[in-house]
Amino acid sequence: MSLESHLAALTSQEAALFVLSGTMGNQLALRAHLTQPPHSILCDYRAHILEWEAGGAASLSQALVKGVVPKNGVYLTLEDIEKNVVLGDEIHGCPTRVIALENTLGGTIMPLSEVKKISAFAKEHGIKLHCDGARLWEAIVAGAGSLPEFTSQFDSVSLCFSKGLGAPVGSILVGSKKFIKQARWVRKSIGGGLRQPGVVTAAARVAVDETFGKGPNGEGGLLKQSHITAKKIAKMWTEMGGKLDQPTETNMVWFNLEDLHITGDEFAAIGKKHGLRFLAGRLVVHYQISDEAVERLEGVMKEAIGRKHANGNGTAHKKRKVGEKAYGT
Amino acid sequence: MSLESHLAALTSQEAALFVLSGTMGNQLALRAHLTQPPHSILCDYRAHILEWEAGGAASLSQALVKGVVPKNGVYLTLEDIEKNVVLGDEIHGCPTRVIALENTLGGTIMPLSEVKKISAFAKEHGIKLHCDGARLWEAIVAGAGSLPEFTSQFDSVSLCFSKGLGAPVGSILVGSKKFIKQARWVRKSIGGGLRQPGVVTAAARVAVDETFGKGPNGEGGLLKQSHITAKKIAKMWTEMGGKLDQPTETNMVWFNLEDLHITGDEFAAIGKKHGLRFLAGRLVVHYQISDEAVERLEGVMKEAIGRKHANGNGTAHKKRKVGEKAYGT
Amino acid sequence: MSLESHLAALTSQEAALFVLSGTMGNQLALRAHLTQPPHSILCDYRAHILEWEAGGAASLSQALVKGVVPKNGVYLTLEDIEKNVVLGDEIHGCPTRVIALENTLGGTIMPLSEVKKISAFAKEHGIKLHCDGARLWEAIVAGAGSLPEFTSQFDSVSLCFSKGLGAPVGSILVGSKKFIKQARWVRKSIGGGLRQPGVVTAAARVAVDETFGKGPNGEGGLLKQSHITAKKIAKMWTEMGGKLDQPTETNMVWFNLEDLHITGDEFAAIGKKHGLRFLAGRLVVHYQISDEAVERLEGVMKEAIGRKHANGNGTAHKKRKVGEKAYGT
Amino acid sequence: MSLESHLAALTSQEAALFVLSGTMGNQLALRAHLTQPPHSILCDYRAHILEWEAGGAASLSQALVKGVVPKNGVYLTLEDIEKNVVLGDEIHGCPTRVIALENTLGGTIMPLSEVKKISAFAKEHGIKLHCDGARLWEAIVAGAGSLPEFTSQFDSVSLCFSKGLGAPVGSILVGSKKFIKQARWVRKSIGGGLRQPGVVTAAARVAVDETFGKGPNGEGGLLKQSHITAKKIAKMWTEMGGKLDQPTETNMVWFNLEDLHITGDEFAAIGKKHGLRFLAGRLVVHYQISDEAVERLEGVMKEAIGRKHANGNGTAHKKRKVGEKAYGT
Repeated sequence: MSLESHLAALTSQEAALFVLSGTMGNQLALRAHLTQPPHSILCDYRAHILEWEAGGAASLSQALVKGVVPKNGVYLTLEDIEKNVVLGDEIHGCPTRVIALENTLGGTIMPLSEVKKISAFAKEHGIKLHCDGARLWEAIVAGAGSLPEFTSQFDSVSLCFSKGLGAPVGSILVGSKKFIKQARWVRKSIGGGLRQPGVVTAAARVAVDETFGKGPNGEGGLLKQSHITAKKIAKMWTEMGGKLDQPTETNMVWFNLEDLHITGDEFAAIGKKHGLRFLAGRLVVHYQISDEAVERLEGVMKEAIGRKHANGNGTAHKKRKVGEKAYGT
Repeated sequence: MSLESHLAALTSQEAALFVLSGTMGNQLALRAHLTQPPHSILCDYRAHILEWEAGGAASLSQALVKGVVPKNGVYLTLEDIEKNVVLGDEIHGCPTRVIALENTLGGTIMPLSEVKKISAFAKEHGIKLHCDGARLWEAIVAGAGSLPEFTSQFDSVSLCFSKGLGAPVGSILVGSKKFIKQARWVRKSIGGGLRQPGVVTAAARVAVDETFGKGPNGEGGLLKQSHITAKKIAKMWTEMGGKLDQPTETNMVWFNLEDLHITGDEFAAIGKKHGLRFLAGRLVVHYQISDEAVERLEGVMKEAIGRKHANGNGTAHKKRKVGEKAYGT
Repeated sequence: MSLESHLAALTSQEAALFVLSGTMGNQLALRAHLTQPPHSILCDYRAHILEWEAGGAASLSQALVKGVVPKNGVYLTLEDIEKNVVLGDEIHGCPTRVIALENTLGGTIMPLSEVKKISAFAKEHGIKLHCDGARLWEAIVAGAGSLPEFTSQFDSVSLCFSKGLGAPVGSILVGSKKFIKQARWVRKSIGGGLRQPGVVTAAARVAVDETFGKGPNGEGGLLKQSHITAKKIAKMWTEMGGKLDQPTETNMVWFNLEDLHITGDEFAAIGKKHGLRFLAGRLVVHYQISDEAVERLEGVMKEAIGRKHANGNGTAHKKRKVGEKAYGT
Repeated sequence: MSLESHLAALTSQEAALFVLSGTMGNQLALRAHLTQPPHSILCDYRAHILEWEAGGAASLSQALVKGVVPKNGVYLTLEDIEKNVVLGDEIHGCPTRVIALENTLGGTIMPLSEVKKISAFAKEHGIKLHCDGARLWEAIVAGAGSLPEFTSQFDSVSLCFSKGLGAPVGSILVGSKKFIKQARWVRKSIGGGLRQPGVVTAAARVAVDETFGKGPNGEGGLLKQSHITAKKIAKMWTEMGGKLDQPTETNMVWFNLEDLHITGDEFAAIGKKHGLRFLAGRLVVHYQISDEAVERLEGVMKEAIGRKHANGNGTAHKKRKVGEKAYGT
């Protein structure tokens, strides 16, 4: 398929497989890399494969998944990996067979330099390195490095055509020919193949060429606009006195609502009054977000920040509910 | 989603889930019905779930799959089920938790009367009954009973929009609300959900309404035409002296090539000369197959049957290769 | 451990692992041979791994298990294997990665010549060959070949110290060093290791040395006596007019009760009157079975055969119950 | 079996199952509690089921296992559970179906009051509560509460007859009749049953009656002696200037070797000179440890602590190797 060849070339990998979603790309990759239990996967404790894929790695691949809290609070480093990896063949252990990085994770970039260190470590110890690159396009467009500079560090990468790129559906998984062959076989066993894929792959091709761009750095693409908008929103928020959970490096803005003593639901309710819909305090900006929407958002921000003074210190009843996740999907 | 509601209503089931393929529908159904191992699935030895889904039932659901050879050589009967089912809780056993029927199987209809007997047996013993109904539409159009008459006998049914119905991609899984909720969850764990499904579900809706038809018996649909064409082809073949592996009840014609001492590859080669492509001796007729294509096919048939006399009794070198399946997908 | 070394040497394999039971030996072997799904196992349809291990191969190893009915009605031949094996990497298929033979199966010997043919075929196609040799000792003692002649044909063999050999518990799994290392790791993951095994391995060593015997053909062992007794019983039965389900080659006698129109339960009830306990019509003879027990058995046989004439042709109500297995463990 | 009845009664549970090891008890319990994926297990990040059972929970039960770092640094509290549990049926999530506590964990007691709080929470949310009570005997003997006070809080508990109790092999799993029936079935599927168990259960019974004691608080048992010895050793060590990784509450003493700038291997080497064998700096005291052994240990302690001054601050080269676990089995 032409889309698969195009993406293999763009990422400097041998082969590519069109899949239905980022989750499917990740799950096929893990299943294709892993062979016999005992085996485990190492990842960030917030990783999509651990927290947002309904336990697929355990049910499909019989793998333990170990989530690590990054020491720097932002992204995993080689030091984190070294401290948590399980090497060797000690009989009680469940050795790390795959390290799965995510880039961007919540809009935050893992620098190329760190990726390279971890990649070298993984190679040295015969561990497969997978990248959940659903939003890797964002890191590229933000100037973190070229697409092949990142993707060539990994044994496999999955990238999404939906999300920021705007296609209705689909993702791509890239890797060696042998790996993609095995992933294709697993895809069949879960019924993930498409009889006549053209109807969705055509849209995906447009998303890559026009939203990301035509070259390895997203040359001429529309994606950059979403970063400009996101940074503008972040600036407005902080200038109003709002706090951010993390800096805005790409297209996500994380409003710190706890500081305002309001819940995600309350924030969503304010948005609704202004004609905007929110899941909680995390904003994911799309390149088609209009100036008019940003204006309305300004009204929401003002009202939310105004609540802080009204609420005072009454944080007690605002704390997260039992079993509620701390971060958005 | 409107397509899901429509299909739930059409099949007299509570709920429906759009899935990517018949395989995905089957695999999600098995996983959602099964709970704890030890558990096993009983099906025809030629069943798609056993022979054509890359072992998905074992890898995703940890289930033994027991394939049964029908005593009547055509379809499973209650007698076959009773002889092979594993009941009770004997500790060495792996009890049958799901009986999976397929209708049509290779174009052959399992009669409604037999389905009802097996359904009553399954209910009596607390066994879930699934129907791989990828081609159930064909049985309905052939007059075997109405769609809800069949589907209401089962705990779950998967039906395909592609294949005979002609949509580019997609299938539907129907069942109880609780069952569909669980299937949806499993679908997430394998990444089988579609972010924006409209692009494919719209085509599926057209396929149901126009190819199958607007009512429970496929009223006004185009599908019936494929049966007429198939029967015409079968008649031509037998009148020329060809044999059939099984009678043509719906849209499939099974040329017996062994009788002609030719292999599937050889038959395909003859087809190629006439501008037609074959996988082997099984023909699946589509409602769009033109009269002109049938004419060309006539030429292929003549040449193939002519080989018989040339080949004589030299069957020895025509036998199936080791590891080659005896029937088509 | 000395027991492990002894058995490795006795079977001409590199290494050995003490396990709790024949089932554990089989399950660890399958898990250690298999790597990534899709993968399947080929075996006799009556095989212990398929019918008597509670679906372990599916739940622990995610494998399809395909049971084959031997064409000769007695044991699998290369022809059966060739007809049912799945080779190659066709994407719908679930390739055969392990062929598992059982010897003896129900007391019947698979000849060394057939084992050699299947072994050559497996090697040629990169398929692992496992032997459920729980009762392989019996075949050796019956003169079918030496222990290493059989075991060297396989990638792995499990042999039981209990059953005919008479130890209270335990089995051995033999194979290459690499294989045994992996099996040991899987054993840990199911908690199958013994902290201080001496208390059971000592008995196992005695069972091998004294019941089986000291050499590769069971020289000087007691096991042969059970075959003599079994054949004596079989002769008595047939001379009284009884039929056998299969010839008595080793230590098992299969009374055909259907011919007498009595059920297994009825046979057991007759036994009880004579102070003997039966599960059904299958007798497994132990080397310690006394002459006095055989005398009592004679009484049971007479009474059972006497029933035939009383019962006449009233077979209708004697047929196997739904879900009841046709053969014993 | 009498041993099973005895332990069921002693722990105020309906039924019991003899198993080969604590690992087998844990793995069967998890598999019997869990039904359909997606499902996850919550436990301490140091838990045996997560770190020392070769990934069994993922391979046998397809479960995610989430390890939590206790906020108090010692044992999990309800607060830790509430913060990390996954409730509800959000489709991306992998809900907590089992909470697994371990008591003692590394010799440290989880208080009965906290167990009760977590038990109430688990009941409220329909989550099964399992206790890895391999060393629960130690907590009882240390006065933390009676055996049934602890065990009645759980849906299942596994307890070891080896380790502190001194039997050569074996553990018990207790729970409801329905649960034990399912666990027994799973045990069969991994071949974990014993044909003639008397040879090992007899020793287990002695271990319970004599080492633990005859009543619910271990009345009259020998186990208490090991705590006295452990506390004596801990006191000697700290009086010499040594530090402990954690207080000695039962039979374990954790020498802090990092403070001495020596590795576990170096400490073991010192031990060897004095005729004692160590794995590293964790000492597990048995009730049979003699005064003479403690005397020799005194020599080891002196030499080890003497190294501190010799080593100075040269910690750099003593740091843990990559992939090496920080704590003992």
